[in-house]
Amino acid sequence: MKMKGFITFEGGECSGKTTVINALCKVFEQKNIKYITTREPGGIRIAEDIRNLILDVKNTDMTPECEALLYAASRMQHLTQKVIPAIKDNKIVICDRFLDSSLAYQGYARGLGMDNVLKVNSFALDYLPELTIFIDVTPDVALKRMGNVDRDGKCDRLDQENQKFHEMVYKGYHEVLKMYPDRIVKVDGNKPLDEVVNECIDIVLKYIEG
Amino acid sequence: MKMKGFITFEGGECSGKTTVINALCKVFEQKNIKYITTREPGGIRIAEDIRNLILDVKNTDMTPECEALLYAASRMQHLTQKVIPAIKDNKIVICDRFLDSSLAYQGYARGLGMDNVLKVNSFALDYLPELTIFIDVTPDVALKRMGNVDRDGKCDRLDQENQKFHEMVYKGYHEVLKMYPDRIVKVDGNKPLDEVVNECIDIVLKYIEG
Repeated sequence: MKMKGFITFEGGECSGKTTVINALCKVFEQKNIKYITTREPGGIRIAEDIRNLILDVKNTDMTPECEALLYAASRMQHLTQKVIPAIKDNKIVICDRFLDSSLAYQGYARGLGMDNVLKVNSFALDYLPELTIFIDVTPDVALKRMGNVDRDGKCDRLDQENQKFHEMVYKGYHEVLKMYPDRIVKVDGNKPLDEVVNECIDIVLKYIEG
Repeated sequence: MKMKGFITFEGGECSGKTTVINALCKVFEQKNIKYITTREPGGIRIAEDIRNLILDVKNTDMTPECEALLYAASRMQHLTQKVIPAIKDNKIVICDRFLDSSLAYQGYARGLGMDNVLKVNSFALDYLPELTIFIDVTPDVALKRMGNVDRDGKCDRLDQENQKFHEMVYKGYHEVLKMYPDRIVKVDGNKPLDEVVNECIDIVLKYIEG
């Protein structure tokens, strides 16, 4: 089941999601479109607490199954307390990452299996986005960009994963793309960022106005 | 898939599980049977942290879906780090509550649905107990016993739930019993406690020695 007005952005590290979402906000403001932007855990206290558990460096012995279930738990709290109320209030919800991240990262790259990740996310399947934009940056380009990133304390566990893991996530996203061809639109993220931004804005406006 | 040597006890509040498990330990020691007793989260740090999140009184706005997923996450960490290693070490594992509690409490009493709770627990379905003893105490008897309980700070959120909820859990357990007639043995818990203890010990020894 899909929720009208619920739009998610997906992509690996350094795919440009944040830049695109910021540009989109400006367009929405210019056009007086009611919206919120969010990302899991989205400032929802219980969801934040769960997220902190996942990312805590002392929890490296966390099993992939436990991790996937914690993401799913955080997701439900964020959906219930932030996304669904905004949708009911007729706002566009732009969410940075959602279910597809769990599929690509835990389902494929960590090897839990897409079906297993779908099962543990079964509650969230009632609240799928109507539109998902996947910014497709090849691992070699992403890793080059990461080399340029100022990591002033902004480095988390995922950034430290090796090239192999990034390649697995990349392949994972392409599997997800095959699973949901009607919902997910792929944008070539290797192009200059301003072109990527413009393409994403066009797709979103076409969805909203279409 | 069931794990040989994995035995769980189920039942509502004040069903006598603790007394039965303590008596069983003495029998195991007399007979030199290698065993561990545990209960979720079982002293596993990550699982404890998850459990604390669930029971924290400030988290009353937690959605039932989030709660069910957190129990499932805690379960996987406890299974992986405590139950499975003990089973591999040829020990009998006696666990106070497991999946069936989630089915009765979240699936039935909180109305999430058995199928949904099974889906979010799909990882745990690979590690089911071979024997589950359900100590069947009717809600009226349980509530009378609760009135006699010394609550010196031992009262948690579940104890405070009303009679209606206890009745729902009771019905939930009977639904679970129908789902797994081969795995779950029902013991009449309304009888005097020493009779309940003896009956449970007989069942467990028959399972181990049989």
